[in-house]
Amino acid sequence: MNTLPYRLTGTELLRAFKGGRLSVEDYANSLVTHIQARDPDIKAWAYFNAPQVLEQAQALDRVPTDLRGPLHGIGVAVKDVIYTKGMPTQHNSSIYADSQPEVDAASVMMLRQAGALILGKTRTTEFAATVEGPGTANPHDTTRTPGGSSSGSAAAVADFQAPLALGTQTGGSTIRPGSFNGVYAMKPTWNAISREGQKIYSLILDTIGLYARCTEDLELLADVFGLQDDAVPKPLATGLSGLKFGIYKSMVWDHAGAGTVKAMERGKALLEAHGAQVEELSPPVEFESLPKWHTCVLFSEGRTAFRPEYQVAKHKLAQSLVDHVEGKHGYTHKDHVEAFDKIAALRPKWDEIAGKYAAVIIPSVPDEAPEGLENTGSAVFNGWTTALHIPVINVPGFFGANGMPIGLSLAGTRYSDRALLAVSQEVGKVWAQQGGWTSAL
Amino acid sequence: MNTLPYRLTGTELLRAFKGGRLSVEDYANSLVTHIQARDPDIKAWAYFNAPQVLEQAQALDRVPTDLRGPLHGIGVAVKDVIYTKGMPTQHNSSIYADSQPEVDAASVMMLRQAGALILGKTRTTEFAATVEGPGTANPHDTTRTPGGSSSGSAAAVADFQAPLALGTQTGGSTIRPGSFNGVYAMKPTWNAISREGQKIYSLILDTIGLYARCTEDLELLADVFGLQDDAVPKPLATGLSGLKFGIYKSMVWDHAGAGTVKAMERGKALLEAHGAQVEELSPPVEFESLPKWHTCVLFSEGRTAFRPEYQVAKHKLAQSLVDHVEGKHGYTHKDHVEAFDKIAALRPKWDEIAGKYAAVIIPSVPDEAPEGLENTGSAVFNGWTTALHIPVINVPGFFGANGMPIGLSLAGTRYSDRALLAVSQEVGKVWAQQGGWTSAL
Repeated sequence: MNTLPYRLTGTELLRAFKGGRLSVEDYANSLVTHIQARDPDIKAWAYFNAPQVLEQAQALDRVPTDLRGPLHGIGVAVKDVIYTKGMPTQHNSSIYADSQPEVDAASVMMLRQAGALILGKTRTTEFAATVEGPGTANPHDTTRTPGGSSSGSAAAVADFQAPLALGTQTGGSTIRPGSFNGVYAMKPTWNAISREGQKIYSLILDTIGLYARCTEDLELLADVFGLQDDAVPKPLATGLSGLKFGIYKSMVWDHAGAGTVKAMERGKALLEAHGAQVEELSPPVEFESLPKWHTCVLFSEGRTAFRPEYQVAKHKLAQSLVDHVEGKHGYTHKDHVEAFDKIAALRPKWDEIAGKYAAVIIPSVPDEAPEGLENTGSAVFNGWTTALHIPVINVPGFFGANGMPIGLSLAGTRYSDRALLAVSQEVGKVWAQQGGWTSAL
Repeated sequence: MNTLPYRLTGTELLRAFKGGRLSVEDYANSLVTHIQARDPDIKAWAYFNAPQVLEQAQALDRVPTDLRGPLHGIGVAVKDVIYTKGMPTQHNSSIYADSQPEVDAASVMMLRQAGALILGKTRTTEFAATVEGPGTANPHDTTRTPGGSSSGSAAAVADFQAPLALGTQTGGSTIRPGSFNGVYAMKPTWNAISREGQKIYSLILDTIGLYARCTEDLELLADVFGLQDDAVPKPLATGLSGLKFGIYKSMVWDHAGAGTVKAMERGKALLEAHGAQVEELSPPVEFESLPKWHTCVLFSEGRTAFRPEYQVAKHKLAQSLVDHVEGKHGYTHKDHVEAFDKIAALRPKWDEIAGKYAAVIIPSVPDEAPEGLENTGSAVFNGWTTALHIPVINVPGFFGANGMPIGLSLAGTRYSDRALLAVSQEVGKVWAQQGGWTSAL
C-alpha cells in the first residue's frame, strides 16, 4: 500500500480489509504510532490506551469474514461525555475523575455491534457546557483553538488520528469545531439517533454529532445509526445542475467576519457556476428571536442538568454552571416555557420554508479559528439550528485571513438527514476543488 | 415506640432519628424483616440485598448529627430503569441481565447526597415500555396487578416496604400504579428533575415519578430535587375554602368505569362541601387529539430508543418494541413531527386554561386495578398529561366495586409543582377522611 493506513478514510479501510490487503491489527499499529507521535502537540485525547486498542484490533481480525460488521475495524473516537464500557467517562470534570460507568451509550453500542474499533475518549470542555478549552490544539495551527465543546473529536479527525468521531451539540459544539478543523461535521435531526448515555445539558437541545473527512464516511455512520428519511433520496445523477438552494445569512450576520463573508460569497458563486440556483431567504421576523430563546432554554435546562453535581460538589463545578443552577441568568420558569413554546412554533415554519430547497446554505462560524487555546470561540451561528432540531452538515472548502479552514453549513428540514447527506456530497466536491482550502496535514 | 419502624413515613422517620429514638440500623432491620416476609407474595423487587442495606444504614448512623442530610436514613426504592452505583440496573430485559453501570442517575446522586438509604431496585415492565406485568402483585389483593410500568415502586410504598420510591412516566407509568395501589404519586413537570441515568423511551415524554404515602414526604423529595415554582406558594390557611378548582373528565371519558365515575362525583362533592368552587372545563376541540398524538410521538421516539438493543439482540426484545423499531405502527417522520408540533402548540393553551384554578381534577385510571398480573392495565387517562409536560399528583381516597383503591389526579400548569403539592395536601386530607377508602395494610 502506498498510503499509510492511518491516513485512510473509513470507506477506504473497508475496501482494504475486505480485499485482505490490510489487517485491523496493522491498521491499529499505524494509528497508534501516529497518535503517540502527535499527542504531545494536539492533545486530542482524554483517554487513550494503546494496548487496549491493539487487543480490540486483534479480536476484530479473528471475526470470520462473513460475520464482520459494516464498520469492521474502522477507528472511532468518542467524545468524553459519552459512556463507553471498559473506558472512563470523565466529562472534563474532577467530580468524575476516573469514573467508569460499565455501560455503553446507545451510539457506542451500535458502533461496537457494527465492528468499529473504539479508539478512546476525546477531550471536551467541562460537561460539553463551557467555552474553556480542554487543552486541545488545532492541528492546522497549534496556537489556535480547535473549537469546542467537541474539541478532541474534531481535532483527531482532522489530524488523521481517527477517521470517524462522535461529538455532541447543544449550542454549536459539533459544527463549529468541524469548521475550525476543516472536516465534515454532521448534527443530525434531534433524537434521530439515541442520546442515551450522553451527558445531559439540555434535553430539548442536546444532539449527538458525527465527524469524518468525507461524506461517504458519514453515510457509513448514518447506516449504522439507522438514519432514514421518509423517502429514500434519489442519487444526484447530474451533480448540482438544476438544484435549487436557499441561502440564509441568518439573524446574527453582523457577527460574521471577513472570512465567513468571503466564504458565503464564494460558496454561492460556485454553486451557481455549477448550474444550481441560489435564492436568498428571508424568514419571518420571529426567527430573529431564536438565539435569545435558545439561550434562555439552554440556561434554564442547565439549571436542572447540573443540580446533582452542584449539590454533591459545587466547588468542583465551573462557575458558569454554578450560575446556571443558582439561576444567576435571571430567567424565570415563565421565561423558560415561553421560549420553549416559541421555538416549538417555529420548527414547522422552518420546515415549510426550507422544504422548498435541496438545502439551505448558512454560515458555520463567525470566521476561522481564533488564536489561543483558552477559549473555544463563538457558537453564535449554531444555536438557532440546534433549537429547530434540523439536520446541519458543515462542508469544508474555504479559508480565512490566516489560511485556516472555514466551512459553510447545509441545513435541511427535520428527518431529511439522508437527502442532506446526498446533497452535501455533491456540494463538497465542488467546494473542495474550487473553494481554495486543502488540508496541509 | 408503638409503631413498628418500617411503617413510618419519611417525615416521621426524620423526627424519630433526630430525637434519637431510632437508629437507622434498627429502622433498616425492621424494614428488611418486613420486606423478606412480604416479598414472596408481592415481588416488588428486582434486586434487594439485605446486607448491603444494613451496611449503608450503619454508615449513615456514623454520620455526625450536624452533617446529616435532609433525607437522613429514609428508605427509598428505585425503579430498575434508573442507574444506581453498587446495584445492577436490568430494565427487566435479559439483554441487561446483571448489568451494573457504576454510576448513579442524577436523581439517585441527589438522594444519596441527602442521606437517603437506597433500598434496592424495583420491578418494572420491560424498559418501562410494555404492558406485560413483571410478576409484581397488588398488595391490596395479590390476584390483581399493581399497574405499570412502575409496578414494584408503587407496590413497595403501598405495602410499607419503602416509604418513598422513584418511578418513571412516559404514558401513565407513575400515576396509574399510584391509583391502583392507593398511594400518592407525583409526575412533576417534564425535566424539572433531571432524567440523567434513566432509560430512555421517549425524550419528550419520559418523566421521573415520585411515590409516597403522604404529601409531606413528597415535599421532602421536592426539596431535595430542587423543585421550585416561580413564586413560593402561600400556605393554605383556610383549607379548601374559597379555592377554585377545574374538573376535566378528559377527552377519553368514555373509558371511565363505574369506579372512576363515582370517584369523580364524590371527589367533586367533597371539595364543594368543604367550601371550594368546582367548574367543569371544556378545553378547545384540539385537545381531543392529544391521546392520538401522544401515541404517535411515543412509538416514533421508541423507534430511536430501542434501535441499539434491536441491533444487538433483537430476539431478546419484546415484540412490541421490535415493532417500534421496524416502524410496524406505520407512522412516518412527517406524522411524527406533526404530532410533536401540535402537542407543543397545546402546552401554552393548557397553561392558560388551568392557570385560572388551584388545580384541575382529572381521572387517574379507568377504574380499580384489574384482575391478573399479566397485564398492567390501561394508561389511557394519562398520556395526554405526560405530553403536556404538566405536573400531576394522584391523590388516593376512593374505591371500586371490589374495594380496591381509586385515586383522582390534580393537574397543574408547568412549573407549578410546589403549588400543586400544597393544594394536594389539603385535598388529600378531605378525600382520605371522607372518600371512603382506607388501606387495610
